[in-house]
Amino acid sequence: MRGPTFYQLHLLLDKHAGEQLGLIDLMGERVQTLGGVSIADPRHVAEVTTVPQPPNGVEEVPAMLSRLLEAHEIIIEKVRETITKTAGSRDDDTNDLLMSDVLRTNEIQVWFIAEHLLNIPVVRV
Amino acid sequence: MRGPTFYQLHLLLDKHAGEQLGLIDLMGERVQTLGGVSIADPRHVAEVTTVPQPPNGVEEVPAMLSRLLEAHEIIIEKVRETITKTAGSRDDDTNDLLMSDVLRTNEIQVWFIAEHLLNIPVVRV
Amino acid sequence: MRGPTFYQLHLLLDKHAGEQLGLIDLMGERVQTLGGVSIADPRHVAEVTTVPQPPNGVEEVPAMLSRLLEAHEIIIEKVRETITKTAGSRDDDTNDLLMSDVLRTNEIQVWFIAEHLLNIPVVRV
Amino acid sequence: MRGPTFYQLHLLLDKHAGEQLGLIDLMGERVQTLGGVSIADPRHVAEVTTVPQPPNGVEEVPAMLSRLLEAHEIIIEKVRETITKTAGSRDDDTNDLLMSDVLRTNEIQVWFIAEHLLNIPVVRV
Amino acid sequence: MRGPTFYQLHLLLDKHAGEQLGLIDLMGERVQTLGGVSIADPRHVAEVTTVPQPPNGVEEVPAMLSRLLEAHEIIIEKVRETITKTAGSRDDDTNDLLMSDVLRTNEIQVWFIAEHLLNIPVVRV
Amino acid sequence: MRGPTFYQLHLLLDKHAGEQLGLIDLMGERVQTLGGVSIADPRHVAEVTTVPQPPNGVEEVPAMLSRLLEAHEIIIEKVRETITKTAGSRDDDTNDLLMSDVLRTNEIQVWFIAEHLLNIPVVRV
Amino acid sequence: MRGPTFYQLHLLLDKHAGEQLGLIDLMGERVQTLGGVSIADPRHVAEVTTVPQPPNGVEEVPAMLSRLLEAHEIIIEKVRETITKTAGSRDDDTNDLLMSDVLRTNEIQVWFIAEHLLNIPVVRV
Amino acid sequence: MRGPTFYQLHLLLDKHAGEQLGLIDLMGERVQTLGGVSIADPRHVAEVTTVPQPPNGVEEVPAMLSRLLEAHEIIIEKVRETITKTAGSRDDDTNDLLMSDVLRTNEIQVWFIAEHLLNIPVVRV
Amino acid sequence: MRGPTFYQLHLLLDKHAGEQLGLIDLMGERVQTLGGVSIADPRHVAEVTTVPQPPNGVEEVPAMLSRLLEAHEIIIEKVRETITKTAGSRDDDTNDLLMSDVLRTNEIQVWFIAEHLLNIPVVRV
Amino acid sequence: MRGPTFYQLHLLLDKHAGEQLGLIDLMGERVQTLGGVSIADPRHVAEVTTVPQPPNGVEEVPAMLSRLLEAHEIIIEKVRETITKTAGSRDDDTNDLLMSDVLRTNEIQVWFIAEHLLNIPVVRV
Amino acid sequence: MRGPTFYQLHLLLDKHAGEQLGLIDLMGERVQTLGGVSIADPRHVAEVTTVPQPPNGVEEVPAMLSRLLEAHEIIIEKVRETITKTAGSRDDDTNDLLMSDVLRTNEIQVWFIAEHLLNIPVVRV
Amino acid sequence: MRGPTFYQLHLLLDKHAGEQLGLIDLMGERVQTLGGVSIADPRHVAEVTTVPQPPNGVEEVPAMLSRLLEAHEIIIEKVRETITKTAGSRDDDTNDLLMSDVLRTNEIQVWFIAEHLLNIPVVRV
Repeated sequence: MRGPTFYQLHLLLDKHAGEQLGLIDLMGERVQTLGGVSIADPRHVAEVTTVPQPPNGVEEVPAMLSRLLEAHEIIIEKVRETITKTAGSRDDDTNDLLMSDVLRTNEIQVWFIAEHLLNIPVVRV
Repeated sequence: MRGPTFYQLHLLLDKHAGEQLGLIDLMGERVQTLGGVSIADPRHVAEVTTVPQPPNGVEEVPAMLSRLLEAHEIIIEKVRETITKTAGSRDDDTNDLLMSDVLRTNEIQVWFIAEHLLNIPVVRV
Repeated sequence: MRGPTFYQLHLLLDKHAGEQLGLIDLMGERVQTLGGVSIADPRHVAEVTTVPQPPNGVEEVPAMLSRLLEAHEIIIEKVRETITKTAGSRDDDTNDLLMSDVLRTNEIQVWFIAEHLLNIPVVRV
Repeated sequence: MRGPTFYQLHLLLDKHAGEQLGLIDLMGERVQTLGGVSIADPRHVAEVTTVPQPPNGVEEVPAMLSRLLEAHEIIIEKVRETITKTAGSRDDDTNDLLMSDVLRTNEIQVWFIAEHLLNIPVVRV
Repeated sequence: MRGPTFYQLHLLLDKHAGEQLGLIDLMGERVQTLGGVSIADPRHVAEVTTVPQPPNGVEEVPAMLSRLLEAHEIIIEKVRETITKTAGSRDDDTNDLLMSDVLRTNEIQVWFIAEHLLNIPVVRV
Repeated sequence: MRGPTFYQLHLLLDKHAGEQLGLIDLMGERVQTLGGVSIADPRHVAEVTTVPQPPNGVEEVPAMLSRLLEAHEIIIEKVRETITKTAGSRDDDTNDLLMSDVLRTNEIQVWFIAEHLLNIPVVRV
Repeated sequence: MRGPTFYQLHLLLDKHAGEQLGLIDLMGERVQTLGGVSIADPRHVAEVTTVPQPPNGVEEVPAMLSRLLEAHEIIIEKVRETITKTAGSRDDDTNDLLMSDVLRTNEIQVWFIAEHLLNIPVVRV
Repeated sequence: MRGPTFYQLHLLLDKHAGEQLGLIDLMGERVQTLGGVSIADPRHVAEVTTVPQPPNGVEEVPAMLSRLLEAHEIIIEKVRETITKTAGSRDDDTNDLLMSDVLRTNEIQVWFIAEHLLNIPVVRV
Repeated sequence: MRGPTFYQLHLLLDKHAGEQLGLIDLMGERVQTLGGVSIADPRHVAEVTTVPQPPNGVEEVPAMLSRLLEAHEIIIEKVRETITKTAGSRDDDTNDLLMSDVLRTNEIQVWFIAEHLLNIPVVRV
Repeated sequence: MRGPTFYQLHLLLDKHAGEQLGLIDLMGERVQTLGGVSIADPRHVAEVTTVPQPPNGVEEVPAMLSRLLEAHEIIIEKVRETITKTAGSRDDDTNDLLMSDVLRTNEIQVWFIAEHLLNIPVVRV
Repeated sequence: MRGPTFYQLHLLLDKHAGEQLGLIDLMGERVQTLGGVSIADPRHVAEVTTVPQPPNGVEEVPAMLSRLLEAHEIIIEKVRETITKTAGSRDDDTNDLLMSDVLRTNEIQVWFIAEHLLNIPVVRV
Repeated sequence: MRGPTFYQLHLLLDKHAGEQLGLIDLMGERVQTLGGVSIADPRHVAEVTTVPQPPNGVEEVPAMLSRLLEAHEIIIEKVRETITKTAGSRDDDTNDLLMSDVLRTNEIQVWFIAEHLLNIPVVRV
């Protein structure tokens, strides 16, 4: 995140990170409420995540933001699948959590990042 | 908005206006997120609105509030149609925005206005 | 609520009571908005409630918390039935209120109480 | 609570209800401190209350507020009797709670309701 | 201030009184800054005020509000004369205080009171 | 209030004035609650006050503060007489207002002013 | 508002819109205080506005901001004419509102927008 | 304060200590107001206190809390004696301070500690 | 700023410094808005200021405050000259800034300092 | 985290997690300031961490807290080594960050956890 | 603390006392973290303190403040010795607590008190 | 500070200026505490500063930011020298102030400015 738009990206991604931490708390509590076990250790997360691993070292801003968009895409797709499942099984509480909190937060975040990238060639890794 | 209930209507409609401005922001952002273009210029709004135009000059309070109720009625009807469409097209995010924010705010506002008009003959223009 | 966990239960149940009072307000306003009449007098509540009456006098903490869990169970079951009905009748506003506010608050409250009772024999009255 | 003064009564009775809930908390804690058992279940409350039961269905505003005044009257009378008792038995703490919190809150609430009813024929049920 | 609009008038006049106390502080400090001596004792105020004395005892709301409007009228007239004087003598600070604070507060207060009295015959004492 | 202790007296008397305005509100509401009519017009106040009138023009700080102490003395004496009366007539609410709010505020204010005047000859007018 | 300065423009224009809404409230209340009728319906606004209508569809950021500057220019010119008129007719209150609130807010907003456009060719439509 | 209830006792005793510091301030100011001299140096306090000295070294939680209860008992007894004296000498201000602030705070604190100790054998040193 | 009035002068001059920093910001932005270049580097300020330079080393409080009064005098005189100019050239925005913010803040600050110096021989350097 | 101390552990560990997130932010910014690249992806973290991996599935509270203590032990040891290094290389900023923020936060957290585990057999995995 | 600087000393010493209570909390927690036992009972404090005991009865302000300065002197000397020890034993956490919190607070407090005493003969007891 | 990153630089430099003013206050108070005399008059500052004087007139953003970086460089170098001196003379309080407040604030500010300048040729004057 460097160059002449550094400070506004710093503010924007700070806000995004805070919102994602809020979602992680809500989803972790929901997993526990349903009798599951939330995972938090980075090695557990590393085993199950389907978001592609970033390269080592520094990335250019557009490449980094392009990967961020891709990660949102993967998450939104999975959330939409899970909404279908929770609607089918009448797990109304999880259903509402995914629609009202997880999906809406992620879609609006996509918009902010995508607007920033406009007129900048998007880099797919 | 005049006469002995002026100050309470002033407080009530101030609160309503603030809530409607919040909804306009949320819906404008959603339109942009979906790739559309929000309109804001009064001439654009005047071209597309289906809420009937108020008469020129001063209105009596009951007439003004009756028109307000009618406008809510038109909006609620359209929101409910759009909820049906967004449920059909699996646009879950818009769907939740319309149900959790737009519909619930408008219905509770209708209640507050309608209670005020009770025992006052409603005027249909 | 006595013994060495008194203060934390005091804090926890204070938070629960505040959240339930918030839900009561929301549901009361919804009933009025729909043209019904909310009841508040304890004798009216006593006539219609299906939550079993607690015994007179002091109860042991586990017994009291077990009854609380049971009451949540009864409420959650009824809320889920009503969600089915409101979805069927397209009462979208009530539907969202029950899913986003009532159900989610009650399920997370159940989790907090149930975790506390773990390893303590649950008492069914 | 309907008609052209609906919104101000809504604000006023909201404030009153919040103050009464605060008193209930203070008195419940005092009962527990003295070694008694506070009751909260509506069926227990229904058994011991001496405030007359409201009729079923909707009431006119003046009738509803008249009943509210009557209920305050019953409570204030009982509070004054109890102040005499607690002064006699040197239960200084309860005595101060009843004078500084319960009595003063109820008397000022009576004034607000009574001023509203002025020039409106009070209805005794 | 009695009858069915009691509570809203209570809120409105509370706000007005608070704003007038703020103006009194500002003007008192200005008088001191200019080397004068502010008066505060009610007997001093009674000697110099040109606002007519209210009758003893209780007044009807419309009469009381009509007198309030008249008092604003007297004050606004004097403020406007003083603005002319301070503009002439280049007392820019007092001039701005009277225009930005005193005049604007009084004129908007007149509006709120006058709207309330609309359709109620104004009583000149 | 001039000379090298000007700013601290300014802060102290600001705080005192704010507390006295709070007491005036409480007592005015109590008078109304009891069915009396609160007076507010300076000419009414001038007719009934027993606090001696200050001289015209500027006073030295010690003289002004001495008069302030004397005024508190007059008020405290009257409050203590009234406490005796309200205790006798079982007007518990007024009794508590005078003891918990009026008396305690005035006595602590006396202490702050008196400490300031220490080692300064008190001037009796 | 798209491209690499999207987020900061989002923050800046949010702040501008909030300030303009505040001015609209102040001016609407002033119109009512003077006995006029404020207009709010978009069709009324469309009839009287002299700000040129924006083209349909999406605009480039520099074109959009250039139009915003032009609109401020039109408003500032009208405000300055009105200040001359209100000074002439001794409408001191409106005069101060236009100078202290409307003019100062618009001029500082022009500065923020103009600084952003620096080194970007301004587009006149 | 160790073992599995450490954190809740930490929160509870923090709250208690803050409330006791508030009472010490109020009583110190009252002593000064009456013309006495408040003591604060630990050696002065050590000379006059009648609360028994705790043993050196670490105590078990129940022993420490039992001593705390005993200290409250000693204080409450003395406060009640002093209330009798201040009522007799018409020192209304001290009387109200002891009843409304000191006694009520100590009695509610006793309840919180006592509930914690329930089912734990109380240790008298 | 030393001696027995040290702490109150510390509080007072802290408040003054904060207010002056606020004015500097407002005037700097106004200069930029008008197309000028605000100066901030101390060497630039040193070149243009007309406030006399304080002597090296420590000053007595009265001397320091006397110089402060003199500096306010110089500033107020210049502000009044500039108000005449901005009124002549219809620079309404600067005019209002100087009257409503700069002049009023400086005059009230003069009063606070001057009251403190009363009865202390003013030292002109 | 289950059983009768569930709610207090929930509050305590929430507070700890928040404090650790704050430290992560501070250290990430320091790494960037020094020209390094902070890692955040769980796979990168998994590669470099020396904290032992927790077992899959649910753990008993004492085992989980014992592992938490062990992790703090590893971190504190590394922080102390790094403090030695940064003192040697005169990297004063990192040195202060590690002492004032990282070390002090971790040591006080250890105390809270350790007190909770007292009298519970610590489990080393 | 009496005479014409009473109120400012009251404010200043209130602030000092609050800061010292904060330091006592921090140091008490540090002692416990290190496995020691904090003392709080005034008799324990009386046994170990090296600050000289104040005389009985009322002291003149300069004598009281002089003793306060002396006490700070004793504490600062001990803190500086302990900083040397904790630096030697690599107790980095205590070291930072003493430097960043205890020493800095005490030194700035000394400055405020010393400035007040300037030009007043300091009294050594 | 002009062009398309104007608003974010405005926000960033506002935050920096506020932090530098806070450091100036802390260092000024420390100088006074040590018995020195803080300088504030711009002519005094101009005599002692070693930061090179900026050119007259407007600068391009990169040139201005480059000079800002250079100024931070000069300050950080001096601060590090002074830290060495204060460590040598055991002036622990100044030492901690420079490390915890001055150095850390300046280094993080350098990072924010430097990131902004990345990919923009740095201009050394």
